[in-house]
Amino acid sequence: MPETKKIDPALLDRLRAIVGPSGHIDDPADMEPYVAEWRGRYRGATPLVLRPATTQELSDVMRTCAEAGVPVVPQGGNTGLVGGSIPSADNSEVLISLSRMNKIREMDPLNYTVTVEAGCVLQTLQQAAADVDRLFPLSLGAEGTCQIGGNISANAGGTMTLRYGNTRDLVLGLEVVLPDGQIWNGMRRLRKNNTGYDLKHLFIGAEGTLGFITAAVLKLFPRPKQVETGFLAVRDPDAAIELLASLRSASGDSLSAFELMPRIALDFALKHVAGTIDPLSEPFPWYVLLELSTGTGGDAFRETIEAALGEAMEAGLVQDATLASSEAQAKQLWFIREAIVEAQKYEGGSIKHDISIPVSCVGSFIAQATEAVERTIPGARPVPFGHVGDGNIHFNVNQPVDADTEAYLAQWDKLNEVVHDIVLSMDGSISAEHGIGTFKREELQRVKSPVELDLMRRIKATLDPQGLMNPGKVL
Amino acid sequence: MPETKKIDPALLDRLRAIVGPSGHIDDPADMEPYVAEWRGRYRGATPLVLRPATTQELSDVMRTCAEAGVPVVPQGGNTGLVGGSIPSADNSEVLISLSRMNKIREMDPLNYTVTVEAGCVLQTLQQAAADVDRLFPLSLGAEGTCQIGGNISANAGGTMTLRYGNTRDLVLGLEVVLPDGQIWNGMRRLRKNNTGYDLKHLFIGAEGTLGFITAAVLKLFPRPKQVETGFLAVRDPDAAIELLASLRSASGDSLSAFELMPRIALDFALKHVAGTIDPLSEPFPWYVLLELSTGTGGDAFRETIEAALGEAMEAGLVQDATLASSEAQAKQLWFIREAIVEAQKYEGGSIKHDISIPVSCVGSFIAQATEAVERTIPGARPVPFGHVGDGNIHFNVNQPVDADTEAYLAQWDKLNEVVHDIVLSMDGSISAEHGIGTFKREELQRVKSPVELDLMRRIKATLDPQGLMNPGKVL
Repeated sequence: MPETKKIDPALLDRLRAIVGPSGHIDDPADMEPYVAEWRGRYRGATPLVLRPATTQELSDVMRTCAEAGVPVVPQGGNTGLVGGSIPSADNSEVLISLSRMNKIREMDPLNYTVTVEAGCVLQTLQQAAADVDRLFPLSLGAEGTCQIGGNISANAGGTMTLRYGNTRDLVLGLEVVLPDGQIWNGMRRLRKNNTGYDLKHLFIGAEGTLGFITAAVLKLFPRPKQVETGFLAVRDPDAAIELLASLRSASGDSLSAFELMPRIALDFALKHVAGTIDPLSEPFPWYVLLELSTGTGGDAFRETIEAALGEAMEAGLVQDATLASSEAQAKQLWFIREAIVEAQKYEGGSIKHDISIPVSCVGSFIAQATEAVERTIPGARPVPFGHVGDGNIHFNVNQPVDADTEAYLAQWDKLNEVVHDIVLSMDGSISAEHGIGTFKREELQRVKSPVELDLMRRIKATLDPQGLMNPGKVL
Repeated sequence: MPETKKIDPALLDRLRAIVGPSGHIDDPADMEPYVAEWRGRYRGATPLVLRPATTQELSDVMRTCAEAGVPVVPQGGNTGLVGGSIPSADNSEVLISLSRMNKIREMDPLNYTVTVEAGCVLQTLQQAAADVDRLFPLSLGAEGTCQIGGNISANAGGTMTLRYGNTRDLVLGLEVVLPDGQIWNGMRRLRKNNTGYDLKHLFIGAEGTLGFITAAVLKLFPRPKQVETGFLAVRDPDAAIELLASLRSASGDSLSAFELMPRIALDFALKHVAGTIDPLSEPFPWYVLLELSTGTGGDAFRETIEAALGEAMEAGLVQDATLASSEAQAKQLWFIREAIVEAQKYEGGSIKHDISIPVSCVGSFIAQATEAVERTIPGARPVPFGHVGDGNIHFNVNQPVDADTEAYLAQWDKLNEVVHDIVLSMDGSISAEHGIGTFKREELQRVKSPVELDLMRRIKATLDPQGLMNPGKVL
């Protein structure tokens, strides 16, 4: 890593000159949204925010920084949860945002692809695809603010991965400015290409530590014509996973969401979030919110699902169920999912885990982790929910009732270690979708094998020998 | 690259001792299937074929070779088409086959994954998945012989990529022995994992030049319950691509194959391959063989497809069509696809191209490439066919009638260059699914950008600093 030092004012002037008057910000008040994280957990400082307008401008900026040994921090919509887009606090790094590079360069409905610049807001991209009767399936809470370049750098997950995969799976081509300012043009619109090493996958999910993603070619899909949304009570997490496997098979793999939540989560939502309704007539210990979508439509699809759920009820997997009969009802069911995230804030401190395990281990993980919480912090209240269709559980643990919040949160690292050890015993991941950033950087060193860490370090040293790309993140 | 030299006999003895008596072959006759390619185009020589029984044995072998600076050639089922698994001719490399490491380590139907060793034959794996009511969708001509480790190293394509992607898209985890003998355990059975650089994608498609894949975790899918197979006459390639886009949408993305073929290909098959039948009542210039599959079944699916094809006929895209009404009929339609590959052999020399372009450029590519062939070798007969659903065309060009085959084939490189230049103008790939090996190594240097070649070389130098992994392949 480069030695921390003040950036030469003359260099800052050269950078300002490259991007022109509308391409930089140095007023502290105007820089505020760039150096602070939206939740207030991370805060950095930079002498200069650059907003280049073209790939060539960024290339010139990067070459200039590389020659001077000045580190840079790439930033998308600044919606991440692990501090990956926040500069260090010592004013030693230049922050670069591509929010002015937000054009959709080409929409190709016949090829089912879109070519887009990194600064394009996700929702804008979703809408542009819909306008030509196509689906861009990436969907997540921050979609009105986050930028596609950040989504790719973070390999964002979201609610549709069960059907369409993670962001990584949606990328066909990339344009990247390398740490030395060279431009790698990998903007291929191809479904098949076996001509050497697949470089794009190195930059996807690297959180801006290997290069600067400036544009991408992304896959589009046919728009679903019919969506069925259901809310079910299930016996336990094991039953949920059995139901998931059989529904994938019975529905022709048309599940697009499968979210597990415990009763306590619904209780929190009913208590704290106005508009939450329990759609079933009595309480149950576990629930699944599911969505299935088809491109063909017609009554047959709903009948197939009803039949499969009927069988699951007879088999004792499902205890009660409701299928939305209108879009408004479907929205109400999805509202529960959003409300349970919101509601946890009102129950005091919450120690969080964004983990994944094999889908077949979900039941066992929840049981073991719940027991471990009880052993470690008696009275703490686990709220395990999330995208279990992908084996991704947001294992959040609310403080014991009436406990001191600060004292509770002081046990964050201790509880993380206990829960992560269970994850590791199942060959799971300590960051399923949120990434590493600065937040999990130390823990990464603990949980990854020396061989894997060594490979990652060698790749970092090869692509970014000066260590100028987003220092202090990931590795 | 290491200097070519004879391998020290004492070292060969040490390698023999690591794998034991049943783990090595040094009789020239027994080594024959390992050093010769099945079509007879490539031939090498090695003093020793090693067949380790465990990852640890391979690790010991690789460490021993690395310490002595001896290069190794990984080999799967030896079914590749670009010479990637054949050693050099000078006896300087040890050949390693994992055919004894062929176990299915774990089948996990609930997680929709299988954990398998590299030497497992593809067909065995397909069958094991079917036995637990799951689909492993990779399917290609050599499936009775090729091994999954080779498929992953080559990122094999095949007939089902339109729906399920390439081999790369089916891999969740890998175990790799690195060039220095270290074992990287990346055997994760996870759908989501954002904990640093995605190392597995480096080894997938690297053709054994960065490390030795020993095992993998692969995705499984629900088995389709209903398959519809059709053979259509289309106006021209542009019409085929329009039809493809609208059928993806109308069928809810259930197309699993979409193969284009010209009349000349069918003529060749009717003339040379017994059992080929023209399923339509009169000749047409272009045909599409398509397959759609669904996991739900029922009459509705076929009705949807019939309606979509009816609309395409009214729009003039489709001129005639037949949908198979039995499995036997479907097999007969697929037989045409196999027969047209076979039949080209009986029409003299054929200069081949395995290219891909954006799907929306298929019509334009075929027109331009056909014109270029006519200009370059008047009378030569293009037979452009293949997986156009992926933009992958096997642009084979048969010699002019009565031309001298040897003189014709002498123009291979010249024609390749002309056709590849058209591919490059469309940002296409000169090797869509067959890889680089030794066959396209020189051409790769011509067509890739200096930036991309440099990145590839830096990665190779980082992971394999001595250049001992499959030298002379890819780079």
